[in-house]
Amino acid sequence: MDGQLKANTVALPRGFQWGAVKAGIKASGKMDVAAALAPGGAQAAAMFTTNQVVAAPVTVGRKHMASTGGRVSAVLVNAGNANCATGQAGIDACTATCVAAAETFGCIFDEVFPSSTGIIGVPFPGDKVIGALPALKGALGDTVGHAEMFAQAIMTTDTRMKVASASINIDGVEARIFGAAKGAGMIHPRLGPPVPPHATMLVYLFTDIAAEGAELRQLLQPAVQQSFNSISIDGDTSTNDTVLLLASGVSGVKLDSRSSEAFANALNLVCSKLAHQIVDDGEGVTHVVTLDISGARNEAEARQIARSIAHSPLCKTAWSSADPNWGRLMAAAGYSGVEFDPALVSVRIGEVPVYEGGMRSPAFDESRAHTVMLQREYTIAMNMGQGDAGCRFVTCDLTEEYVRINADYST
Amino acid sequence: MDGQLKANTVALPRGFQWGAVKAGIKASGKMDVAAALAPGGAQAAAMFTTNQVVAAPVTVGRKHMASTGGRVSAVLVNAGNANCATGQAGIDACTATCVAAAETFGCIFDEVFPSSTGIIGVPFPGDKVIGALPALKGALGDTVGHAEMFAQAIMTTDTRMKVASASINIDGVEARIFGAAKGAGMIHPRLGPPVPPHATMLVYLFTDIAAEGAELRQLLQPAVQQSFNSISIDGDTSTNDTVLLLASGVSGVKLDSRSSEAFANALNLVCSKLAHQIVDDGEGVTHVVTLDISGARNEAEARQIARSIAHSPLCKTAWSSADPNWGRLMAAAGYSGVEFDPALVSVRIGEVPVYEGGMRSPAFDESRAHTVMLQREYTIAMNMGQGDAGCRFVTCDLTEEYVRINADYST
Repeated sequence: MDGQLKANTVALPRGFQWGAVKAGIKASGKMDVAAALAPGGAQAAAMFTTNQVVAAPVTVGRKHMASTGGRVSAVLVNAGNANCATGQAGIDACTATCVAAAETFGCIFDEVFPSSTGIIGVPFPGDKVIGALPALKGALGDTVGHAEMFAQAIMTTDTRMKVASASINIDGVEARIFGAAKGAGMIHPRLGPPVPPHATMLVYLFTDIAAEGAELRQLLQPAVQQSFNSISIDGDTSTNDTVLLLASGVSGVKLDSRSSEAFANALNLVCSKLAHQIVDDGEGVTHVVTLDISGARNEAEARQIARSIAHSPLCKTAWSSADPNWGRLMAAAGYSGVEFDPALVSVRIGEVPVYEGGMRSPAFDESRAHTVMLQREYTIAMNMGQGDAGCRFVTCDLTEEYVRINADYST
Repeated sequence: MDGQLKANTVALPRGFQWGAVKAGIKASGKMDVAAALAPGGAQAAAMFTTNQVVAAPVTVGRKHMASTGGRVSAVLVNAGNANCATGQAGIDACTATCVAAAETFGCIFDEVFPSSTGIIGVPFPGDKVIGALPALKGALGDTVGHAEMFAQAIMTTDTRMKVASASINIDGVEARIFGAAKGAGMIHPRLGPPVPPHATMLVYLFTDIAAEGAELRQLLQPAVQQSFNSISIDGDTSTNDTVLLLASGVSGVKLDSRSSEAFANALNLVCSKLAHQIVDDGEGVTHVVTLDISGARNEAEARQIARSIAHSPLCKTAWSSADPNWGRLMAAAGYSGVEFDPALVSVRIGEVPVYEGGMRSPAFDESRAHTVMLQREYTIAMNMGQGDAGCRFVTCDLTEEYVRINADYST
């Protein structure tokens, strides 16, 4: 289930508490400081943006993960200020919030994992975060309402919260996963192993399975590759992108040879659902397009072709008007840098063949293709005719509304 | 002088005739088939798009250049149909137009250089081009009016013709260059040596200096690198991009050690002026932004950073509203793939310092920066603090009008 948690159907992972408060950082006056607490501690794995320019909380978060060997007791997130390009003052302010949070929550300061999202380059109001900590402690709880509060507070230009959950059952004992994410703009995550982020995509995954940090990292990387690293709204890779996976171990289920495949599938499912929600709620999005690239020589080339199409303003504007302009798709594949023979490529929009044998398909039916593209979601399939590798990449159209949102001087 | 030729001030290169007619290919009914004739023949150098998907005239043009060793007697251009993704039928139709043009103009068929621009994937109406040849022959002439007719007929979504000229004087004898270009959309040329195009950028350069094809190629490559390969409107590299340089030799000036530097400068000037006009007339453009990257380790990295910024929808939308959002500039540089230390980078918008030492410049004045960005043209300078290489890259903003133009189903 995704999109909306329902109290009766969702069982949250045990060993966590969530909460959020208003600290006056968002101009809207909405909740803007959130925390997730693991009172008994949690094993953790994190992936950060590969952008060279990173926010202070990324620098601090990486340091904390390294010094604790991947142990996290509290996640402290603010929305409204990215604490990026804020110099040493930004680093100092971030560290000060971690020290204060550790004191409030009763843990070691480097077991606090900080995140920020919002505007870049504006001095970070650490005092507002610190001042909000007592109220934040009082707001913590382990109900669905508390988890939703966390998911709502981390939003910036998102129009709706993004949550997903899944569970596995091993010998009658349940291990659960709950994920919360924010997205909306500057979305083209390219997360790497312990490398920095300054991000607009923040993802927090909570599970009560028992696992070591190294085991979590091994599962997180492929899950992220197939989900968050396979989406793009605008091609802009943020400076704060972060995915954090926390395992409390409270379920009693251990990650081992009997549970790991089921758990990996559940984790992949939660990540895919969140990634899809991020694109679906992208700025100005009116169509969600899945690019299904097949017949490539290898997965890397398939992804290179998908990214080239996903970032082509001409493809994206054609999608906004349901225009089956396959020439733009072929042109974008053609300049992707991947070598291929256009005569071997075939393209379908939904089930409608549009291109094959180096030219428009004889079966091309423009009005049928247009009808497919009028749907909010559909798939464009491109077979390169070269091999048996492929990828699925989820992206969206480019609309006047996207331009209006991002041209707004006040953002 | 550029933009508009004036009969009294421009001396066209000798040894060429230009003309154009209406053949019914453009839906608008405007002139759509143009020719440039070199009655005594011309030495030629060409560069084509590096897109893997190329139009039929590119395939044919490359073959003709190879078989003649770089000799061209006639250029035959149509606008309204790109003859791309049209299969073998498209190649055959293109060749048929060359054969018919050779008969009409009295030259060998592979001395005809074909170009097409317009919609992709629609069967090529070669019969319309062939039917127009007698009238086209009658329309040829060597006046400024004829050259302008050529420049106008090759336009598609361009709002104005693009021409530029220059001359050099060697011992009292003048050698001249005249260039005509079309652009408007799908503009991010990445031209390579004899590799294909399917393009929306077409550039024709005519000179009356005497030079061999190999000498022309040596001058054309650096001129293209600093001009057409240093601009981007939307990041979409077309399948037909072509730059052709023709030298009639009629001036009597020879390209040699005494003239080559002056000629190279004149050629660079004409190319830069045409490239600038292409961006200035880009679809929906309201601001032309020159990215002046310096302090890079090498030119390739400087260009990589410039392209990353030039293709960032978030940077481009901020420019459309004169928003001095330098965080987006730093983020785009940060995900360019080039390694650098953000603390060493400094950024200026016009003369206004905006970023240095890892954070907002103490001298940042938002309203001054905004005022700079209200101008139609300005420069953003980014010093990477790593070395002494750099580049200048000309690009533009992304506006709602661009989306409207390209989302129009009928295009």
